[in-house]
Parts: sequence; C-alpha cells; structure tokens
Amino acid sequence: MATTLEKTVQEMGDMSISAYGKARSTISGKPLSDEENKKMTEFFKASMYLCLGMIFLKDNPLLRDPLTTDHLKRRLLGHWGSDAGQSFTYIHMNRLIKKYDLDAMFISGPGHGAPAVLSMSYMEGVYSEVYPDKKEDTEGMRRFFKQFSFPGGIGSHATPETPGSIHEGGELGYSISHAFGTVFDHPDLISLTMVGDGEAETGPLATSWHSTKFLNPITDGAVLPVLHLNGYKINNPTLLARISHKELEALFIGYGWTPYFVEGADIPSMNQAMAATMEHCILEIKKFQKQARDSGQAFRPRWPMIVLRSPKGWTAPRMIGEHFLEGFWRAHQVPVPDAIKDKSKLKILEDWMRSYKPERLFDENGALRKDLKELAPQGNRRMSANPVANGGLLRHKLHMPDFRNYSIQVQKPGVSMFGSMLNFAKFLRDMVKDNPHHFRVFGPDETESNKLAAVYEASKKVWLGDYFDEDSDGGNLAFSGRVMEMLSEHTVEGWLEGYILSGRHGFLNSYEPFIHIIDSMVGQHCKWLEKCAEVDWRAPVASLNLLLTATVWRQDHNGFTHQDPGFLDVVANKSPEVVRIYLPPDGNCLLSVMDHCFRSSNYVNVVVADKQDHLQYLNMDAAIAHCTKGLGIWDWASNDQGMEPDIVMASCGDVPTHESLAATALLREHLPELKIRFVNVVDLFKLMPKWAHSHGLNDREYRAIFTDDKAVLFNFHSYPWLIHRLTYRRKGQHNLAVRGYKEKGNINTPLELAIRNGTDRFSLAIDAIDRIPGLGNKGAGVRERLMNERIWAANYAHHEGMDPEELTKWVWPY
Amino acid sequence: MATTLEKTVQEMGDMSISAYGKARSTISGKPLSDEENKKMTEFFKASMYLCLGMIFLKDNPLLRDPLTTDHLKRRLLGHWGSDAGQSFTYIHMNRLIKKYDLDAMFISGPGHGAPAVLSMSYMEGVYSEVYPDKKEDTEGMRRFFKQFSFPGGIGSHATPETPGSIHEGGELGYSISHAFGTVFDHPDLISLTMVGDGEAETGPLATSWHSTKFLNPITDGAVLPVLHLNGYKINNPTLLARISHKELEALFIGYGWTPYFVEGADIPSMNQAMAATMEHCILEIKKFQKQARDSGQAFRPRWPMIVLRSPKGWTAPRMIGEHFLEGFWRAHQVPVPDAIKDKSKLKILEDWMRSYKPERLFDENGALRKDLKELAPQGNRRMSANPVANGGLLRHKLHMPDFRNYSIQVQKPGVSMFGSMLNFAKFLRDMVKDNPHHFRVFGPDETESNKLAAVYEASKKVWLGDYFDEDSDGGNLAFSGRVMEMLSEHTVEGWLEGYILSGRHGFLNSYEPFIHIIDSMVGQHCKWLEKCAEVDWRAPVASLNLLLTATVWRQDHNGFTHQDPGFLDVVANKSPEVVRIYLPPDGNCLLSVMDHCFRSSNYVNVVVADKQDHLQYLNMDAAIAHCTKGLGIWDWASNDQGMEPDIVMASCGDVPTHESLAATALLREHLPELKIRFVNVVDLFKLMPKWAHSHGLNDREYRAIFTDDKAVLFNFHSYPWLIHRLTYRRKGQHNLAVRGYKEKGNINTPLELAIRNGTDRFSLAIDAIDRIPGLGNKGAGVRERLMNERIWAANYAHHEGMDPEELTKWVWPY
Repeated sequence: MATTLEKTVQEMGDMSISAYGKARSTISGKPLSDEENKKMTEFFKASMYLCLGMIFLKDNPLLRDPLTTDHLKRRLLGHWGSDAGQSFTYIHMNRLIKKYDLDAMFISGPGHGAPAVLSMSYMEGVYSEVYPDKKEDTEGMRRFFKQFSFPGGIGSHATPETPGSIHEGGELGYSISHAFGTVFDHPDLISLTMVGDGEAETGPLATSWHSTKFLNPITDGAVLPVLHLNGYKINNPTLLARISHKELEALFIGYGWTPYFVEGADIPSMNQAMAATMEHCILEIKKFQKQARDSGQAFRPRWPMIVLRSPKGWTAPRMIGEHFLEGFWRAHQVPVPDAIKDKSKLKILEDWMRSYKPERLFDENGALRKDLKELAPQGNRRMSANPVANGGLLRHKLHMPDFRNYSIQVQKPGVSMFGSMLNFAKFLRDMVKDNPHHFRVFGPDETESNKLAAVYEASKKVWLGDYFDEDSDGGNLAFSGRVMEMLSEHTVEGWLEGYILSGRHGFLNSYEPFIHIIDSMVGQHCKWLEKCAEVDWRAPVASLNLLLTATVWRQDHNGFTHQDPGFLDVVANKSPEVVRIYLPPDGNCLLSVMDHCFRSSNYVNVVVADKQDHLQYLNMDAAIAHCTKGLGIWDWASNDQGMEPDIVMASCGDVPTHESLAATALLREHLPELKIRFVNVVDLFKLMPKWAHSHGLNDREYRAIFTDDKAVLFNFHSYPWLIHRLTYRRKGQHNLAVRGYKEKGNINTPLELAIRNGTDRFSLAIDAIDRIPGLGNKGAGVRERLMNERIWAANYAHHEGMDPEELTKWVWPY
Repeated sequence: MATTLEKTVQEMGDMSISAYGKARSTISGKPLSDEENKKMTEFFKASMYLCLGMIFLKDNPLLRDPLTTDHLKRRLLGHWGSDAGQSFTYIHMNRLIKKYDLDAMFISGPGHGAPAVLSMSYMEGVYSEVYPDKKEDTEGMRRFFKQFSFPGGIGSHATPETPGSIHEGGELGYSISHAFGTVFDHPDLISLTMVGDGEAETGPLATSWHSTKFLNPITDGAVLPVLHLNGYKINNPTLLARISHKELEALFIGYGWTPYFVEGADIPSMNQAMAATMEHCILEIKKFQKQARDSGQAFRPRWPMIVLRSPKGWTAPRMIGEHFLEGFWRAHQVPVPDAIKDKSKLKILEDWMRSYKPERLFDENGALRKDLKELAPQGNRRMSANPVANGGLLRHKLHMPDFRNYSIQVQKPGVSMFGSMLNFAKFLRDMVKDNPHHFRVFGPDETESNKLAAVYEASKKVWLGDYFDEDSDGGNLAFSGRVMEMLSEHTVEGWLEGYILSGRHGFLNSYEPFIHIIDSMVGQHCKWLEKCAEVDWRAPVASLNLLLTATVWRQDHNGFTHQDPGFLDVVANKSPEVVRIYLPPDGNCLLSVMDHCFRSSNYVNVVVADKQDHLQYLNMDAAIAHCTKGLGIWDWASNDQGMEPDIVMASCGDVPTHESLAATALLREHLPELKIRFVNVVDLFKLMPKWAHSHGLNDREYRAIFTDDKAVLFNFHSYPWLIHRLTYRRKGQHNLAVRGYKEKGNINTPLELAIRNGTDRFSLAIDAIDRIPGLGNKGAGVRERLMNERIWAANYAHHEGMDPEELTKWVWPY
C-alpha cells in the first residue's frame, strides 16, 4: 500500500523557501506588456506611498515640503507588514475584474493591514464618494492620512467604516469561513481572500480550509484564497513560512485545494508571475463552474488557491542600521518608529517615501494620475464598492410562514407534554422550503440531535465529500441543501456571519455548553454590528440568531463537562443596542420568539430552549401576548388576584419554569391560604432598568410585577448571579433570591441535578416557606414533609436508574 | 516550478476508502504468532463485552442467566461508536510496552468512548486497585457496569475518576495539544493519542498537528497519534473519512508527519497490520530520538502517526432490521436503544453479547482469564497506572527566587513611573533559569509585546522549524528553550494544561481581549480540577496561571475589537473552589501576586496587569501586606483617619486605580474639607460573602472597609456589573456606584476611552461630588471646572494626536 506521496516525503525540503529574488511561480508566462507592467508597478507604489502616509503623516501629504517632525503624528500607529502583499494582490485582481467583468470582493484576513485596503478604496475613488471630506486632492489626502489610527478617526483594521469590508480581522482566524459565507448562494461572486500566515496558525482558520466540502459549484460562487507567506508574526516567524516547499504544497493538496505558488521580491517579474497565476486560477474557477453548471452535476473540484511568498514589509529598506527591516518581524507594525525622535530616522523615512516618487504618481491637485486610475474597475465592479460588502443593501425579503399555523394546542395550561423543539422544527422546515435561496440552517453536527430533523423534509445537508451506500439509510446528504453541518462551531459561525453580512438570513443551532467555543466570535460580531450602527451608509443586516439547546438541566447523561449556561453572561456584556436574550418557557412561546428574531435586523439574538418533551402552558394567543410583553404574571398559576401576594414565584427558562410551577403547586396544595403570584420572564433584558436597555422596565412597571417589598424567589436557567446583576438597582432587590446553576453536577438525573443546585420543586417550596413570615407550625410541618420527599426523590434514582416516571410526567393540578 | 506533488493531484481519489475487508496497511508483515493473534483477539473481545456491559447492564454481568429487561439499566447511556478502535489500539500498545519496556500513557480524544478506556483499566487490574469495591470478580464487575453513566456513578467520558486519564474529552479538540504538553521535558514518555475524526474537524485540533515544530527530540518525549477514521459523528459522516486516500495522506505529510495507514475490519489481519505498523512507528520514534540524542543535534523528524480506518461500532451487527448499525452513525451512542422496550431487540443484544463468549473470556469467579491478563503490562507500565496521568504525584518542586529581590524602589507612593511587567520579567527570567526542566512560559506570539522579553536572557523560544539568516538579529529562536509561542491560544493553552497535569509548572501570557478565544478550554479545565478535588487518589497539580495584559484601557490604538475585559465574568461563574482573580495595582503587588500564584496548586489563577509604564504606589513590604489581605484602605491616599468618610473611592485594576487616585487628588485639591477614604482591591473574590467564597469578607470586615451607609464610588477594570454581582448581598450595596468598561470605545486616547466609559479622573471626581450631599455652591463650582477640564482633555488629543504628556505623567501630590 505504499503510495506516491510517501515517496515524496524523502524529497522534501529540497526547495528554497526564500521570499527574495526574481519571481518563481507554478504558472509561468508573461501576460503583461511592458507598459502594463510599468503602470501596475506605479499603482502598487502609489498604494505603498499612501500606506506610509496613513501611518506617519498628519500634514504635508505629498511631501511637497521637506519632511519635518511637525508633519508626523505624535503617536505612530498602524501596521505596515502585510500592506504590500495585500495591495499587490488587490491590484492583480483589478486587472482580471476588468478583463472578465468579474463580480468580486476582497476579504482582508490580516485586518491589521488595513492601510492596503484603504489605499485601494481611495485610489478607486470609492472612499471619496462615501466620505466626501476625503476628496481626491491634496487636502483630502491630508485628511485621509490624518484620520487613520488617530483619536476620533478610524481604526487600523478593516473596520466597518471601511468601504468594501465585511471582515475586520482584529481577532484573527475567520477570513476563510467569512469568505465562504459570502459566496454561498451567490453563484457569480468571487471572494478574493487574503489569509495571513499568522492567522493561518489559529485553530479556526486551520480547519476552515475544509469549507470546499460544502461549496456547490452550481449554486455557489467561489473563494480564491491567497495565503500570504509574509514570514513573520509580531515577534516570531510563521510556521507555514518555515516548512519545506513540498510540505506546504502537500498540506493544501491535503486540504483539497490546488495550490499555486508565486514567490519573490522583484516587482516586474512578480507582476508577470502573479498576473499569469491569478488569471489561471480565475479561469480554473470558471472552468469548474461551467463544467458543473453545463452538466447539472455538482462535484467538488480541487479549487485553486495562491500562495504568495513575499518579504514582510515588502518595498521597505531591507536594513536600517544594523537591523533587518524588510523581510523581518521588525516590519510588522510601524516600520521606523523613532522617526519622530531621531532626525536620521526621519531622513530615512523621507528618502523612502520619496523613493516611490509621489510627484509622478499624483497630479498637481493631489489626485492619482489618470492613466493609473484607469487600472481600477468602474462602479460597483470596484471591490471596495461591491454591494455584497454592504449586504444590507441586498437583503432579501424573508418569506415567513405564519407561525400561528404551527401552534401547539393547549386546552389547559401545564397538562399536556410536547416537544417544543420538535414543533418548531416544522416551522423551520417551511421557512427552508419558502426561502430556497437566501436562508440556511447551520450547526455543528447537532441538528438531528437537537430535534430539528424535520427540516430534512424540505432540504438536505450539503455534502460535497464522497458518498457511501449507507448514506441512503437516513444520511440526509445532498450536493445541494440548506443545512450546513461541520464539527466546528468556529466554521459554522463564520459561515453564518459571512452569509448574513452579505445580505442573507440564517440561524445556528448548537449545544448550549459548547457555544462558549465561539464566545469571542460572537463578541466580535456584536462589536461589528455596534460600529455599523454608527456608519450611516451601512444598511441593516439580518440578525445573528443563535438557538441554544441540549441545555444544562438536561445534560444529566453527558455530565459536568456539558453543563455551562454561561454564554448569556458573555452576551450580556455586549452593547444593549445589539444583544437580545430570550428564554421561551414553552413551545408556542418558542415559535413566537423565533418568528420575532427572524424578522429582526442588526441584533444578536440568543434563544435558549430545551429539546426534550415539556409541559405546555400557553395557547398561541396567550403566548404572543406574553412574548410581546416579554414577561408577565401568569394569572392561571397565581392566586393573589386583587391582593398583595405573600410571595412572588418567578422563573425564566423552560426547565426552571416547570420546577417553579411544580413548587407553586406543592405550596398551594399544602398551604392553600398562601397568596402566590407566578411570574415568567421570556425577554431577559426586561429586568434591566429602562435607562440601561431599551427593553428594560421602568421602576413602576417592575414594581407592578415583582412588588418592592415581598419575597421574590426567582428560578433561573443560567448562573443565578446574572439576575442579580440585571436587577441590582431595583428597590426590592434585597427581597430577591435567585436560584440557578451553581456548577454542581455530574451524572445526575434531572431532578437530582436540580436538587444539587437548589432549583427543584422541593427546594423551591422549602425556600419559599423559609421566606414567608408567620407560617408557624403548619409551615414547619409542610417543610419537614417536603424535605423528606426531596430525599426520597433524590435517592430513588440511585437504586433504579433514572427519574421515576411520576415526577417527569407531573401536570399542573389547578 | 512544477512539483511531484502537483502531479499526484491528478491521481487522487483512486484508492478505496472503505473501512471493511481484510486489513490493508502501509507497513506489512506478520509479527504475531497465531497464538498471540488469537489471544489479542480474545482480549479485544473481552473489552468489547465489558463496553456493552457498561452501557446496558446493572445486573447479570456475565450473562449466566438469560438476559431480561430487569438486568438492564432503566436509562441506557454511553457511547459505543469509538470503543472498538480505542481498545484495539490500546491493546497493541500494550504488546509494545511489554516488548520494549516503554513508558507510555493513553489519551482518549473521543472521550465519549470512555468504556474502552475503563475496560482496559479494569482488565489491567488498576481499576480494582484504585476502587476496591469494583473487584475482579462477578460482583465487582456488576458494580463496575452499574456505576457507568448511572446516577451518582461515573461519567461517560474519560473523567477525572478514570485512572490513567488526564483528558476528559467532553468538549472536543484538545487531545493532541494535551498530549504534547505531557511529553515536553519527559524524554522517555510516549503519549499514545487517539484522535477522533469528529474531533479532528474542530479548529483547535486542526492546528494542533503543527505541535511537532516545537518538540525537541533530545529533551522531549514523543506523541504517537492514532487518527481514528471511524467514519461518522453523531449524525454525519466525517470529513476526513470522505476524502481520497491520497488527499488524506498529503494532509498529514503537509502537517509534518509520516502517516501510516491501517484499514479494514477483519480482526486477525487487522491485528497483524496494526502490530507491524505500530511497532514500526515505535522503532521510528526510538530511531529519531537516538539520532538526536547521540549526535546532540536536535532536528524535526517527520514523526510517525497512524491512521486507523475501522468501522464505527466495529464488531456490532452490521444491520439491525433494515438499518445499518456497524459502520454507520447509528452506532455512535447506545447501539440498541430500544432493548428495554422491544423483546426482539433484547434478543439481538443478548445474542450479540454472547457472541463474544464471556464464559470463555472470564473465569468462574468473573476475573479475566489469566493467560489473557498476561497480555497487559505490569505495575506502572500499565497505561492506566502511569503516574504521569496523576501528575501531582510527580510534581516537581518549583525553585522560586525570592521575589523581594526584584522590588521596585518606591520612596513615596504615586510619584515614580515604572513598567510593572518589565520588572516582573526579571523575576520570570530567573524562574526560568532556576527551573530548567519543569517550568515553561507559553504565549501566542506576544511575550515580547507583553514586555516579558527579559526571559530570553535565560532561555529562548523553542523552534524546530527552518532557520533564516535574519533570525540572529533578535529572533531569540533555539532548538531548545523554555518559551513556547504559536499564534493559537488554543494550542498553547492545551500544551500548558497537559504540561501541568503531568506534573510540571508554567504560565500563559496573553492579550486580554483574545483570552475569550479559550473561554471554553479554561472552563473545562476548571471543571476537571473541581472533580479532581473529589477524587481522593488525585494528587494536587500546579495551578493554571493566566497573565492577561494589553488590557482594555490601553487598546486605544487597536481599537474596539481589542477591548474586552469580560474573561473575568466567565471565570467567576466557575466553582469558587478552583478560581482566583487578582488585579495588582502596581509592580510590587504584581510580584507578590505572581509569587503566590506560582506556589499555589489546583487553582486557575487569573492575573490582570497592564504592560505600560505606571505610577508605583507600594514598597515591597506594603505590597506584601496589601496582597496578603487582598484589599485594604490606602491610608496615604485617604484623609478620613479616625473619622467617618464622606465618600469611599475604591478601585480594582492598575489603570482604574491610577484614575481613581487622580480623581481623589482633584477632590482633595478643590474640596480639601472632604473626608475621603481610598480603598484598593487586589483579590476580587474578597468582595464576595464569606459563605460564597473562601476568600470572601464577612459582613463586619466588609463594613469596616466600605461602610454600609456612605457613597462608594468603585472604579473597576472590567465590566462594572461584575462588582454588583459580587456585592449584591452587602448591606451598603445601594450606595455603591461602579464604573468600568461599558463597551464604548474606538481609536481613542487612553483618557478619551476612560471618559467615554466614565472611568477617568474628571468623571469620577464629578461623580463623587454628585454623590456627597451638602457641597453647595462650592461643590457646584468645582463640578463646573472639572467638566471644562474634561472637555479640554478630551479635545486636546483630537487636534494633536495622543495624550498630552502632562496627563500621563501625573503624580500623586500628597
């Protein structure tokens, strides 16, 4: 079973991995005339000049005066290292956009190299169109330079203020998954994606290369990745730049791509190599697409990708004094950081900037020379003007079936058992059916486990890998489908973000405990949305909808590692303008909440709902009313009508609501004279003060529900402290006791787990008795009895296995 | 520049990727005698029998009676799918451990296949030694079966209760990085690591294959990964099982390994193939190690790895009724889930279990047949008994230089500026020097950026990749070194966890915003530690020390994406028994805190400290006293001595302390009659009630510091709500106002950023005036003046660049 590849191992390491010298490339040829080559070089130099200008200058933008420290920003910020490679790549794509009238956008993985992207947008004229105060003249250029990484200005990544960007890249690792998100269902789009070799070391990026196994060449567009072997991170060489050429080649072949190499530092020969190689790649993409589209037969091509090996900080001086600059990590950030303090360094900077000959690149008004500007495409073909990167503009209308048609029949609250998720799955199925081109369902291999398999009646899971015989036995795989599953929360989240930001709709379902894996991704998306809201030309995009299930309270079998409801804390830290958290207590509420989330825009909606069978409480009208209010008193479970309650039993989350209702029933059975008010919260941020969150109740509204002097026993889905954090300003907060998950768990039955955390019916009823004064001997007797029942219930499972049926099949008795 | 690999692309996809049939393997040979082969098969079947027993039985363990539903657990739980492959691999390693006297341990990536690991531990006798109530007899086996995934029993992963496990695998993705952590500085250890093909899709796992670039063959041991191409996840095929054989081979060659394939389902031939292949791999490992050790010249070998392709649920019936079981995703979890309800299924289960012939594998007492038991190694050579997997047993004493010797001289509080991190770096350097074999520094490419470069005076960064000329210009790379940097927070965290759990010490430094990337990993480690504390044979391990810097308040240049101090919220949700959070206000406190953290065990210590120059406040004696108390009144900054204060100015975190002190100075300058108490908090959990956290203050202690009726203005490093969450039960909580990061930021100067979030000196002083009654016109005048100063300070930067020096060089005036 020896193979060809095995033998190649012997030969590995026999090629240069230097970024210097004349160009070396997999594809050779000289597609550029000398004139073209010269102009592209000048365009490239103009871009490099602008990059340096952004990093250093607040005045004297075209160096028409001798450079002095007065022209420099007081604090020098920004990243130079990846600018040249990014600009170089962008320029070469421009040539092909014009030649083949391509619909393309640019994703900048090493977002810290924003000067490259900004310079392109400025030279294409888009920047001045979007920001008229940054005209294509000397004063406009001065402002364009000064605002960069300057207080009150724009950031040093491809932030939301950057035309053409859907990917900021402050946190690294998501360029490829974002790029794939943009091209799904955009069959004509090519997303040119720069991947930094630093970024390439991250886990999320490393697995996202597999995305081609989910790309349909008929209905989806293409991603053309350019792995930028820049050689260095902040202070270290990059792994991929320090392995043999053949190892690198094998790696990408293994990932399923066909890698094409372009390596070197000599600009004219690099232009020819890149022009030939990129054109080859574009033609390959077109060929694969044509083959699939003509035949109607999807397949997984070995899509082309480019490995661009060029010196870090390319075109900078190779050495400054005794230290390496170009081609070393010192070129990563500000390349001459002491220019402001050291006159000799200022001179080096000035000479370097003048070496690009700005006086020849820009005309006397300060605009890019006309014949150079013609190298860029026109109108929306300019990558920085592609409306896909302002996806809200393209946002498709989502066809929503009427969720009321999927109602669960509830004759009487708390009597019938039903799976809320199973029921929602039917609504989801029809959404998939009604939106065949702009709505997708994402998940890390859990859609079926999460009881959403009904969607497969409408559409299968996309799968471009190989097929086996047994796949027909419930495999639900297809070349085209609306469900996307890969065991990488990072990748599916990245796809979804890219899909939404380019104008479509979708949602992700995941096990609650493992959503923490993408804490930082969701945080970054929140930040993106928040900044977009400040950028007036950004059109609203669909909300990011996260449905969390397999929740903490039903992780009895998976145990402690699967018990973590803390994602809500992470989300609650983000701006109240973008985050929403809903915990529907039953199936009709879940429908109502999801309908609302799908219709909303510019939010991150987090919905938590259990996937097991549950008691159902509200008929559809009641559910809509309840979810619209976001919280409310459940009269049918309360007996304080027209009076002050002795205690408020509050709940948030389906399992805690179930236990809290059971506790209320126990109290009403044993202590019928008690006046109990039952409150349920769906919309968590209702608890916040009005001034802190737009959903928040004002104090009067809050008091009307929770009182400000009665005991409130709040049973919460997540860690209990989150409720205290939201309510610490409320007058009655001293009377508020919150129960929730307190990191106590193992292989426990649901009831046992609840008991360990004090969220079970018995503990809650005991808790309530302890909080209501004046119950005397009768109260003590009931307390004793409940203590015994709790012990019995907890012990039962230890001998028999799991929960006695009489406990899980409990119904509301009134 | 065409290459060999390029041509292989043409040939790809031409080999079978079936898991069925006779064995096919890269290495052939028949190292096993028929007798050996037969015994290994029987050992394997015994393991399979035990796995089924764990999943199904609570009684009748050896099926000496006909199987009835009474013998079954009421709720069937556990995972069957990966058990066979794991046991098969483990058994083959046993053969080589005996033959070559190897020091080996086993890491189970697909931790859900714990039955395999548990069965091995039981058959080796370790389980009964550790848990004497689970003897090697019929009653012991019954208990062993029943406890599995049973209420009050053990979990269905390789939990801390599992002898030989350092890796639970509930959350997937960390097996390889954990494994590498165990073998660094353990030159004789081989960590045999099963990687599930589901797990292999995760980002963290996908990049962790690069770990070989950091492994020194002289001083480190080896990881032998076995990628288990099991074919399926919960409901989907796995990516790596559905690509061509050659793509797969190329992928691992690209990652830097030499992959050896063992594929098939026929047990006797699979035994021969695996025996030959694994022996070849072990000899390769030995050869590489000998080559490096004999020559004294480290290098990066293309280490061997094994790809084991076997059917999911191997040895189960291929079909049940019309549905596939073995070799399909239905074999993932409980393979005959309705055995308890359906008699025909019960019969299928019984026949299947009997097909292993338990009566021939176990003797009449219920113990494994003696001649089979002899296949396992003896004593600590048994993988489930390797003390490395109970690393606390091996924990090396950490040689700690006296941190007092690194004191920053502080004559007067708040006058001199110094870099706390730069100073700590010298202490760290000497720790590295004094602990050359069991202490390492980990970080994602930020150690130098985080001002810790002094460590390179003691030891360089490990780097087994290629070297370039410019590396000598400050590259700090070496074949052996104590600093480990890769741009993957996941990988470095995984290495550190593995390193600690196998008995060593270390710490990780990271940018604060991106530590969210490993929220879930740290959460899982907390859970691991918490469970270990309940397992009496688990010896304490060194704490996991996380030093977070490049904090939110100094991310002015990187902007909004780099501003997230919310990791503390994630950590604070974990059990108070294992988490500790420290925010030292200055350099001497940082030393004292870090010394404490390094000496501690079984905690996750999170330390947040800025890396820029800062005012220094406490001399070493004062710092030690302050850190020992964890919080305290700073008399030198207070003027309420012997009196009730008008206000308590409290702070936690270095930047907030600086601003809070400056606000105090402003108040004392303008309103000298005010009595101000200044409080600083180092140990965050001091704020919690004593009953909720062992560090917490009781109410009397809390009142003595914060009062219970005066205004407290608390300036906090992180999101302000965390303080409310910790103090909601304190009597004075209504008087407590907390300022912190509120998700307001962009490219702002430090002062501007503080102003936007209300944590700057001016806002705090104004805030304080608003909270103190009776300041009358004078107060109003001062307020007005401070408002103007705030506007001036904020605007200044917009015109000039960054902060005016007079503000950053502020000193304490009293």
